[in-house]
Amino acid sequence: MSGSDLDQLSINTIRCTAAEMVQKANSGHPGAPMGCAPMGHALYAHAMKYNASNPQWWNRDRFVLSNGHACALQYVLMYLAGYKDVDMDQLKNFRQLGSRTAGHPERELLEGVEVTTGPLGQGISNAVGLAIAEANLAATYNRDGYDIFNNYTYAICGDGCLEEGVSSEACALAGHLGLGHLIVLYDDNNITIDGDTKIAFTETITKRFEGMEWQVLEVLHGDTDLTDILAKIEEAKKCTDKPTLIKVHTTIGYGSAKQGTSKVHGSPLGAEDLANVKKEFGFDPEKHFEIPAEVQSLYNSALARGQEANKEWDNLLAKYAQAYPTEYAELLRRSKGELPTDLDDCVPRYHVGDKPKATRVTSGEVLAALMKRLPEIVGGSADLTGSNMTNMGDQPIMSKDAMQNRYMEFGIREHGMAAILNGMQAYGGFLPFGATFVNFIGYCWGAVRLSCLSKQQVLYVMTHDSIDLGEDGPTHQPIEMLPLLRATPNMSCIRPCDGRETVGAYMAYLNNKEGPTTLILSRSGLPTFEHSSPEGAMKGAYIIDDFSGKGKKVIIIASGTEVLQAVEAKKMLAEQGVDARVVSMPSWDLFEKQIDDYKKVVFPEGIKRLMVEAASPLGFERYADDWIAMDTFGASGPAKDVKAKFGFTPENICEKAKKLTE
Amino acid sequence: MSGSDLDQLSINTIRCTAAEMVQKANSGHPGAPMGCAPMGHALYAHAMKYNASNPQWWNRDRFVLSNGHACALQYVLMYLAGYKDVDMDQLKNFRQLGSRTAGHPERELLEGVEVTTGPLGQGISNAVGLAIAEANLAATYNRDGYDIFNNYTYAICGDGCLEEGVSSEACALAGHLGLGHLIVLYDDNNITIDGDTKIAFTETITKRFEGMEWQVLEVLHGDTDLTDILAKIEEAKKCTDKPTLIKVHTTIGYGSAKQGTSKVHGSPLGAEDLANVKKEFGFDPEKHFEIPAEVQSLYNSALARGQEANKEWDNLLAKYAQAYPTEYAELLRRSKGELPTDLDDCVPRYHVGDKPKATRVTSGEVLAALMKRLPEIVGGSADLTGSNMTNMGDQPIMSKDAMQNRYMEFGIREHGMAAILNGMQAYGGFLPFGATFVNFIGYCWGAVRLSCLSKQQVLYVMTHDSIDLGEDGPTHQPIEMLPLLRATPNMSCIRPCDGRETVGAYMAYLNNKEGPTTLILSRSGLPTFEHSSPEGAMKGAYIIDDFSGKGKKVIIIASGTEVLQAVEAKKMLAEQGVDARVVSMPSWDLFEKQIDDYKKVVFPEGIKRLMVEAASPLGFERYADDWIAMDTFGASGPAKDVKAKFGFTPENICEKAKKLTE
Repeated sequence: MSGSDLDQLSINTIRCTAAEMVQKANSGHPGAPMGCAPMGHALYAHAMKYNASNPQWWNRDRFVLSNGHACALQYVLMYLAGYKDVDMDQLKNFRQLGSRTAGHPERELLEGVEVTTGPLGQGISNAVGLAIAEANLAATYNRDGYDIFNNYTYAICGDGCLEEGVSSEACALAGHLGLGHLIVLYDDNNITIDGDTKIAFTETITKRFEGMEWQVLEVLHGDTDLTDILAKIEEAKKCTDKPTLIKVHTTIGYGSAKQGTSKVHGSPLGAEDLANVKKEFGFDPEKHFEIPAEVQSLYNSALARGQEANKEWDNLLAKYAQAYPTEYAELLRRSKGELPTDLDDCVPRYHVGDKPKATRVTSGEVLAALMKRLPEIVGGSADLTGSNMTNMGDQPIMSKDAMQNRYMEFGIREHGMAAILNGMQAYGGFLPFGATFVNFIGYCWGAVRLSCLSKQQVLYVMTHDSIDLGEDGPTHQPIEMLPLLRATPNMSCIRPCDGRETVGAYMAYLNNKEGPTTLILSRSGLPTFEHSSPEGAMKGAYIIDDFSGKGKKVIIIASGTEVLQAVEAKKMLAEQGVDARVVSMPSWDLFEKQIDDYKKVVFPEGIKRLMVEAASPLGFERYADDWIAMDTFGASGPAKDVKAKFGFTPENICEKAKKLTE
Repeated sequence: MSGSDLDQLSINTIRCTAAEMVQKANSGHPGAPMGCAPMGHALYAHAMKYNASNPQWWNRDRFVLSNGHACALQYVLMYLAGYKDVDMDQLKNFRQLGSRTAGHPERELLEGVEVTTGPLGQGISNAVGLAIAEANLAATYNRDGYDIFNNYTYAICGDGCLEEGVSSEACALAGHLGLGHLIVLYDDNNITIDGDTKIAFTETITKRFEGMEWQVLEVLHGDTDLTDILAKIEEAKKCTDKPTLIKVHTTIGYGSAKQGTSKVHGSPLGAEDLANVKKEFGFDPEKHFEIPAEVQSLYNSALARGQEANKEWDNLLAKYAQAYPTEYAELLRRSKGELPTDLDDCVPRYHVGDKPKATRVTSGEVLAALMKRLPEIVGGSADLTGSNMTNMGDQPIMSKDAMQNRYMEFGIREHGMAAILNGMQAYGGFLPFGATFVNFIGYCWGAVRLSCLSKQQVLYVMTHDSIDLGEDGPTHQPIEMLPLLRATPNMSCIRPCDGRETVGAYMAYLNNKEGPTTLILSRSGLPTFEHSSPEGAMKGAYIIDDFSGKGKKVIIIASGTEVLQAVEAKKMLAEQGVDARVVSMPSWDLFEKQIDDYKKVVFPEGIKRLMVEAASPLGFERYADDWIAMDTFGASGPAKDVKAKFGFTPENICEKAKKLTE
């Protein structure tokens, strides 16, 4: 069989198998896999440098299926490529409970899936992060003759991914940074779920991407012209100072009687149509999941090539280790996600009597110290550096010509930022962070949620914690963000009350490899509390100001800026014969991980509790008998006035706490 | 004084006054108002058709300050223009508690502010909604010789608004729909908070907007060339089949010693610099808030012109009322937000024994019936029409050439959709709705939050409520969305369990003029429950299956799809000697509005309660002693398997409920 015949057979095998998987599951999306099969085959059989027997090879080319609903395609390709976790049973149990071949590709479920996709626009934005990670490592560690990092990041995306705003944000930054190793194949099939793209999506995408500083190429016959697809990929690789979008004209559900319509998007073809497709592509309709031996053999050669490339790289790395032992040691440590043991010594110390500082400032100081010590910390702000205090160490700014720099200017692109962080984390060897105002977590939730689902260690440095931000008013004052974070599995959320707790928050973050951490930081100054501690903060809740032993007892629970008013209220209560304990509770999730005995020490039975937090009280019943919280949006005015208006004063806390002792 | 001298004096007056406001407040953003003063003056003194003494004139030109932080500009302009709610005291009390001149412009606080802005990208997207509303009404009600609706929508936006993904989404749709009456003035000042735009924002914005089917014009000397600004606005108005972006080159903080730098963005100029600015512009630095009489007089003429235009329109409308009484009556009703009294008759009835239907289907049926009866209902889906069931009435699709059509294809642009809905609602006379999967509320939260803050009656039709969606898996299964909605002030959230409750949900929505309503709808079929009712649903929680009187009592609370398993569990419990009441609780917020006596009837003291809901249990302590809920993300698999895996079976409910009686 000629090479091109074999390629055609492979592509048709992929089409049939993907359609068969959807048919067997009686659920899924056959159209995109059938249309994207030539692209997928071009990448996995020819263009990509990867080693299916070592999915974690650091310098592998990355593949992202941004139109994650097309995952039957990815699973078939991974099966052919030889990923051990995708055997024939996995293909046959597509979308079944307990399978690794889930309804959308999940990174934490299946090794070889670089990022979890499905929510549209995420994958292509993650790909930008993957490409940034590669470019940063290359600029940092490569030496003459030692191209340790030079992989490409490939993504396939559909119309939906390009309509989503998050992709505009991330792709604009990709163009700005000139990511020459990023290649996106756009499956231009003119169909979305609701019908022809002309109903809603008529822009000239090539012009938009050229405007965003991308190279744009086009494949006119993407269903049939593999040679052109491969040629355009080669052309893309040659353009080293710009990312490339290859617009590939395809037919959704190519081969089906319903091809080219939205009917093949999201439901099985049906037995009859599937049989015809198989017949048309030269397969026996009676046989199921048939993989011709020649096709498997073609992919076996790809595997052998990948293994060879991996071996060459290993040899190069071994020589690099000789020539650049310090750099190598650092890389090795980063690749394992290990931390140096002296971190405690490098972070600042905070003392009672220090000048009051906002926790955004103490956060900035701790982060600056850690960035100095840990080269894997790379990140920045969505254009709020001076407000988020995320570059107090004056790290130079990453740019097209200085990709080794570690401070990132994301622009006013919160959603793109979070998706990029997920991509960078997925590359390996990074502790990425992003920053904006707490309220704008609501702008990037689509991506933050995926940090949680995929258990990615991403740090969100969020400042301007509450109504305490004052004059900017209710458009900027978060109310519902704390409950959102608390309601989300795998999210660790920490709202420290001073510098010591900020140190604890960062330590908890560094220890938490099972998901993202969000820091909720104050705009205004806070003293160092007498009994605050990093260790206390790391327990989630602890006694920061204890009973004196005189009077009726009550517990005041507070976090962040409100700890200050709680401690003041305690003094007033003492004057009135009430004995209050103040519990600082920066993190519910950390507290809920403690043993019961500890919890009972902090919250002994029989003593009533008042919770004070300038956020929605949803869930406060878990810990408190009464509370001062935000049942409405805030207001614009000086912080002190706004806090007083909503009852966050020592006097009001005192009064409410007293009532609990009656 | 010549016209152009007077214009210059006016512009400088605006610059000085805005800077003075920020200085007095000791908080705010002087740079953008000073740079945008010529644009603002062009609009309020010359180009816009509006009547400050009647801010609600329906056919007024709309103005949106998308860079809401520049609101000192808008407040000065409104003061000059004669809006009664902005007097000199308001200017002097900028950003103070209780002022209408809040830190960012708030629609619900100040009449004449069309939409609440500040969170970047929202205003320009709202403007798209305002322009769609105008075009829809024009296409529907205008008649030969009766251009009842022909206003323009103007927006000023900054770099940030164009970097945000939401604006890409909305502007792409604006281009697609050919909104000729939308004119955006882009304040191109090359500066964002973190510095020069070259650090992150280097794309060719003109090319991107041309790609998105906009006309792009340019004003090269926006600080000084008012004539050119006005000429370009005129040119924009002549282009009737495309929206126009006018790129106006300006200098941030024009006149300040720090002009052209990010230093003038977000802090007061300082007394010295302000004094110099005033001197430079010919004002006495010792005098404060000085408004030259000639300037006020120029704006008085604008007011007179506006009043005259309003009067002419009133006359035209009076004639229209004669010529087209039916249309007029409908318009009048819509303008008042009144509903016909026969709505109960037009919605479908659901009966016990009917074929099971998903609530997304019953929602589709109710919505279709209401759309038939209420022309003010206009909306659509973010490319999930067939899944969201939002066009079961086969409404024709709105398009460039058929703007009167009422079904909207938003494309895969959830955030843009929600922001557009806010704009449409703000225009008046609309009941706009948008639809996507529940999980993708997280994609559009930035805009949904503003529906809440601005108390806008927007309907969010959200389907695929939970893990019950099955195979699509955890990327699409919401966990944290119900708590998010419950934690947000002014949001009404309703999760009906059958057709009758769906009817109740829509009735509650129509009655709720104080904020948005989100419907949480099932993918899979549900029977009509014997004792379900629209009235019950409208109370938020009610007894759907009561005690029999035999055995130990327990209450099972459920919502949506889980009501089915709760009712089945009740039967099993009866067999085991336990007497369960099932409370259907579609809405916490509606229930919390009921009187205490009613609440006690539903939840009598002394009877333990089990809550069953396939979402995060955050807040369940408020109502329940124990629960079955989602503490983790879901899984991909057939719905039944997934629900069983996470304990949503009658058997498990039965067991847990029994334990509560022990």
